[in-house]
Amino acid sequence: MTGLIIGRFQPFHNGHLQVVRWIAEREQRIIIGIGSAQESHTMSDPFTAGERYAMIHETLKTEVARELFIVPMEDLNRNSLWVAHVLSLSPSFDRVYTNNPLVKELFEEYASGKEVVCPPIFKRKVLTGRKIRELMLEGKDWKSYVPAAVADVIERVDGVQRIRSIAGSDEVES
Amino acid sequence: MTGLIIGRFQPFHNGHLQVVRWIAEREQRIIIGIGSAQESHTMSDPFTAGERYAMIHETLKTEVARELFIVPMEDLNRNSLWVAHVLSLSPSFDRVYTNNPLVKELFEEYASGKEVVCPPIFKRKVLTGRKIRELMLEGKDWKSYVPAAVADVIERVDGVQRIRSIAGSDEVES
Amino acid sequence: MTGLIIGRFQPFHNGHLQVVRWIAEREQRIIIGIGSAQESHTMSDPFTAGERYAMIHETLKTEVARELFIVPMEDLNRNSLWVAHVLSLSPSFDRVYTNNPLVKELFEEYASGKEVVCPPIFKRKVLTGRKIRELMLEGKDWKSYVPAAVADVIERVDGVQRIRSIAGSDEVES
Amino acid sequence: MTGLIIGRFQPFHNGHLQVVRWIAEREQRIIIGIGSAQESHTMSDPFTAGERYAMIHETLKTEVARELFIVPMEDLNRNSLWVAHVLSLSPSFDRVYTNNPLVKELFEEYASGKEVVCPPIFKRKVLTGRKIRELMLEGKDWKSYVPAAVADVIERVDGVQRIRSIAGSDEVES
Amino acid sequence: MTGLIIGRFQPFHNGHLQVVRWIAEREQRIIIGIGSAQESHTMSDPFTAGERYAMIHETLKTEVARELFIVPMEDLNRNSLWVAHVLSLSPSFDRVYTNNPLVKELFEEYASGKEVVCPPIFKRKVLTGRKIRELMLEGKDWKSYVPAAVADVIERVDGVQRIRSIAGSDEVES
Amino acid sequence: MTGLIIGRFQPFHNGHLQVVRWIAEREQRIIIGIGSAQESHTMSDPFTAGERYAMIHETLKTEVARELFIVPMEDLNRNSLWVAHVLSLSPSFDRVYTNNPLVKELFEEYASGKEVVCPPIFKRKVLTGRKIRELMLEGKDWKSYVPAAVADVIERVDGVQRIRSIAGSDEVES
Repeated sequence: MTGLIIGRFQPFHNGHLQVVRWIAEREQRIIIGIGSAQESHTMSDPFTAGERYAMIHETLKTEVARELFIVPMEDLNRNSLWVAHVLSLSPSFDRVYTNNPLVKELFEEYASGKEVVCPPIFKRKVLTGRKIRELMLEGKDWKSYVPAAVADVIERVDGVQRIRSIAGSDEVES
Repeated sequence: MTGLIIGRFQPFHNGHLQVVRWIAEREQRIIIGIGSAQESHTMSDPFTAGERYAMIHETLKTEVARELFIVPMEDLNRNSLWVAHVLSLSPSFDRVYTNNPLVKELFEEYASGKEVVCPPIFKRKVLTGRKIRELMLEGKDWKSYVPAAVADVIERVDGVQRIRSIAGSDEVES
Repeated sequence: MTGLIIGRFQPFHNGHLQVVRWIAEREQRIIIGIGSAQESHTMSDPFTAGERYAMIHETLKTEVARELFIVPMEDLNRNSLWVAHVLSLSPSFDRVYTNNPLVKELFEEYASGKEVVCPPIFKRKVLTGRKIRELMLEGKDWKSYVPAAVADVIERVDGVQRIRSIAGSDEVES
Repeated sequence: MTGLIIGRFQPFHNGHLQVVRWIAEREQRIIIGIGSAQESHTMSDPFTAGERYAMIHETLKTEVARELFIVPMEDLNRNSLWVAHVLSLSPSFDRVYTNNPLVKELFEEYASGKEVVCPPIFKRKVLTGRKIRELMLEGKDWKSYVPAAVADVIERVDGVQRIRSIAGSDEVES
Repeated sequence: MTGLIIGRFQPFHNGHLQVVRWIAEREQRIIIGIGSAQESHTMSDPFTAGERYAMIHETLKTEVARELFIVPMEDLNRNSLWVAHVLSLSPSFDRVYTNNPLVKELFEEYASGKEVVCPPIFKRKVLTGRKIRELMLEGKDWKSYVPAAVADVIERVDGVQRIRSIAGSDEVES
Repeated sequence: MTGLIIGRFQPFHNGHLQVVRWIAEREQRIIIGIGSAQESHTMSDPFTAGERYAMIHETLKTEVARELFIVPMEDLNRNSLWVAHVLSLSPSFDRVYTNNPLVKELFEEYASGKEVVCPPIFKRKVLTGRKIRELMLEGKDWKSYVPAAVADVIERVDGVQRIRSIAGSDEVES
């Protein structure tokens, strides 16, 4: 059976990894949808879809024994069409893994055949993308919270510097 | 003569109904534009255009003796083109009814032939879409503020549950 | 029960009217979706959505005893999302009436609960929008093929002259 | 008084130059709208908006004594909104110069205050963008048909080679 | 080193497979971009991005020993931005493999650091997506021209029937 | 050599003018990109691109001896493509003048050949578009902060009244 999980992965962190491992115990195939694929270089979405694809691929190629599909998904900004959008971009799947009530609501309204499963949440307080981006901005230790392969990708694209540039530009209006 | 009124109608409530009745005393034909037609499943816009169309139709089919036109209108996000957008989607009309100063401004700048009329505001404090959506979220009485036909549509699509799901998802970032 | 029919209605003609009457014998409520609502002033789509709405409303307000919903629908240009788009813009319905194999295919793939019905085709050879637009362009009799109310709308917006202007512009490139 | 002329200018050629000179005898200020600004690297639109801006600026900076405004305009693909789009992007103007019947029709329908003037056509047979692009593709003399400054811009961006690449790609489907 | 190849893969066929194998002899990592990801259910693009992703994954999971990245890419319809679009969606790469002169032109203009390589063409006459779609439409043998895993995906989604429905709809205008 | 500066110019004010003069001492040609060209009639972007074009042209036609290019630029909302978007719309340039760290970051990442220069900031505290729009809204003196030609354009379009209408509409939801 095949499970789908969708996130923005800004960046892909240890919490995401634990959820993927948890799904890997239950499914033969895992589809990871990279949401807001068109976004980058903002405070909430600093990394491009290609960079996030690389983070996930590099981390999981040695981690997960399962068949893996990584699918960048541009936002559609039409909630009533979003499930059809996901279904058209993704190989077919049986179950959706999410803790987001809106995602759950949309799949239940618009894809009656799909089961929605809530995975456990691993140290939510510490492990969020927002928290990790803040640590980067403040020059604190962030590498403890992401897989080593993710830290490599971020360093290769000079991601911490990028986040600081973005933060600086928020104060500017001429 | 024909009058146009545009709203998001999230949901269509008793205040809207009173305005439509007030216009019906002045015009032979009424066009109701459903704004932000592409939106749904958000806190400010929970209902689809089709659901809002149904709310208005079901309420007014026995209420208003006038000829009625209901026209869903997707947002254009170009203020300088918005009047042309409305004119292209709507059957022709003579007067625009609005209390929104920007709508008034845009029609006066971009459609010099149309008269803009400010209808009276009925119990604005209590009767706003936002207030009614909050009552739904808090589990309080909201049905007193909408026509019975609107409450029926909302119940048929399980709208209160939908609003709660959306509210929950605002707290989530993984 | 409610039936949906979608067309571009450029213009709404006697063949369309016969189909609507045929549906009216079978359904209590009829939804008429105006496709390609964003188009106008081209050879294949000369009339705005608002003009087409007026054609249909003026024709049917005395013709059909059924409850009628007219819904302009902008193109989405994503076939795999089109059914979800229609479902979000339209009040709910039970059956779709169409002779277009792609529309049939899309509803069967993406809206399993809806029945698709093929209405009879009335004098297809003579009664197509394309044929009527050609008659307008050539200065021949076109009014015999459309309801009187449609001819009124076309004359009010000087539609024949518009079609000639559009035809002329196809030959121009500087 | 101010006159507006809109073209795609693929490329800006001697016929365009003659029309601009003709307008310059009648207006104090000339606005040149570069249509389809988003297009480039196709057979009908090989040059970017920036390249076309440079062609026009370089040609006219010594040619025309009038105040000149050059305004790139992305396509909107909504004919009924196109005049509002032009009005929002362009400084204000009094007259529109065009031989395109659709442009004339749209300005007369949607901008009642603007006069539409048909300028004379200078050697239409020989001087069209399409003809000049074909000469480029066939390796024939095209420079005789464009201002020297335009030929300079095209050579600087290696425009003839670009057109040949585009032509070649039309034959490919794997 | 990493090589990128982009195609629409409607469907992924034996010619594509041979090219991928040829690249696999030269690169450690292969990125396959699925172009026109938003398209489906048309004569030139019958299959969704998700279906095409499945075709490629199922074929190559046992075929190619290399690291493989599959990246759906929606069209941007702005040639001058297309290379930046590809770079943002794709993990980083060193070389582009293409026989399309426009793709070559665009990468050479807009991504000076990337080498463009023309792979050999394998039986172009017989092996094109268009040819295979025609065989499907005509009820002839098409399975000989695609990997077995691709034929499986097409049968699972009833793809031949879909192509026939689409072909039929081209003849309809009411 | 040619320098590029991009701003929203809501409105073009004395601070902008001083920067342009400072650039004019260093470059033979100046390109002024008008950002967010599609926006108007909002609190942060009250003026259309055409109005802003007129403000800049009227101010600089007697001020700057340099060759001047004014280029409206619609937002793309894709940061990773923004530099390619600017390059396609603008005549070619050598240097970018900006104090915005994100703009600097994007040009350094995506246009390696271009030098980025930070111009001095002239009385930032007083001279921002936001400050001037607030003065307009509050009925205070704003004309001291903009060139006389800019004040003329704003009065011609009744810009202060427009800003007040927009401000009023923010309080309305029915």
